Amino acid sequence: MRGIFITIEGPDGAGKTSVVKRLETLLKNELGADKVVLTREPGGIPIAEEIRKVILDPKNVEMDERTEALLYAAARRQHLVERIIPALNEGKVILCDRFVDSSLAYQGAGRKIGMEPVLSINEFATEGLLPDLTLYLDVDSDTGLERIRRGRSADELDRLDQESAVFHQRVQHGYIKLAENDPERIVTINARKDLNTVVSESLKAIKERFF
Amino acid sequence: MRGIFITIEGPDGAGKTSVVKRLETLLKNELGADKVVLTREPGGIPIAEEIRKVILDPKNVEMDERTEALLYAAARRQHLVERIIPALNEGKVILCDRFVDSSLAYQGAGRKIGMEPVLSINEFATEGLLPDLTLYLDVDSDTGLERIRRGRSADELDRLDQESAVFHQRVQHGYIKLAENDPERIVTINARKDLNTVVSESLKAIKERFF
Repeated sequence: MRGIFITIEGPDGAGKTSVVKRLETLLKNELGADKVVLTREPGGIPIAEEIRKVILDPKNVEMDERTEALLYAAARRQHLVERIIPALNEGKVILCDRFVDSSLAYQGAGRKIGMEPVLSINEFATEGLLPDLTLYLDVDSDTGLERIRRGRSADELDRLDQESAVFHQRVQHGYIKLAENDPERIVTINARKDLNTVVSESLKAIKERFF
Repeated sequence: MRGIFITIEGPDGAGKTSVVKRLETLLKNELGADKVVLTREPGGIPIAEEIRKVILDPKNVEMDERTEALLYAAARRQHLVERIIPALNEGKVILCDRFVDSSLAYQGAGRKIGMEPVLSINEFATEGLLPDLTLYLDVDSDTGLERIRRGRSADELDRLDQESAVFHQRVQHGYIKLAENDPERIVTINARKDLNTVVSESLKAIKERFF
């Protein structure tokens, strides 16, 4: 018995976290609480948590962008092996907040390493495992950044959120390119709309595909 | 002005550390102390040191071998960017104790991930930069393991040293294959011989190539 692997993607400020929590509740109501797993890297996996600490340590201002990409791939690998694959083997529906596409958009396009090289290290990490469905919450960088600034205090903004608007534009364009190249897997949801609409369109995409 | 990048490789117990220290002294005597740099990953680079801690933390018994390979590649990247490339740009002769070939032999052959996948993530890390010369200190696993056991107390043995003889045989065979495939770059030194002989043959290989 194999479960269903769904990822939620999008630039900062797309509303991923709110959307995925609502989807979790709705799917648990329909399928049963023990059937649905919500996770995100590092997901409480100790090794992945330690790697995440290295990436986000504000002391590490000199981190090379390829070092960062390799560390994200390492945390992804461990989370995949310890959390996602066992849940898939138990037949669960997995909602995962960010996965490989985030590295392609952020490190590949945003940090300009290039999508292809970042894909190669992520294929090493995942051994080619892809989500069954990816919901891409599309939002322009102005709207996304405005939402972030509204929602958080200055201290809460982590390193990524402090990046420029130009960086966020590259990230969005990276996501759009990914969605264009793999329309079978990636469904684009207009995330400038209100939360209720984004959630219901996301749920519709899941149901059309699987239920 | 570009320097010279020399790596020293070999299975545990090949005597790399002793050989490379002697080479450092001899080359400094000939070329001047400020001309020669001895280093090894993580080499005091703070980000690479933190990554190394994650790899070697004995609590992390559940680390997947691909996670480990990605972490080694990440530490390598940062050490390369912060230490090796600047020294090369200053025209130094760099002696580096282990580099990409170690990952190919240990993770690729030893842990059976395969040489090709491990090469791909290391090419991402190095952007294709290869040593100008690699000294491969060849030693069979019986001799190598015997030397390790003699030299260290039980507590000192880290995770790698506790691996089986079969693992060490795979590592040696990995190195032999690498040396066969790239005889231009990799010079094989018989490291079952005594230290003085290994050092003088290593120095001879360096001089024949560069001085």
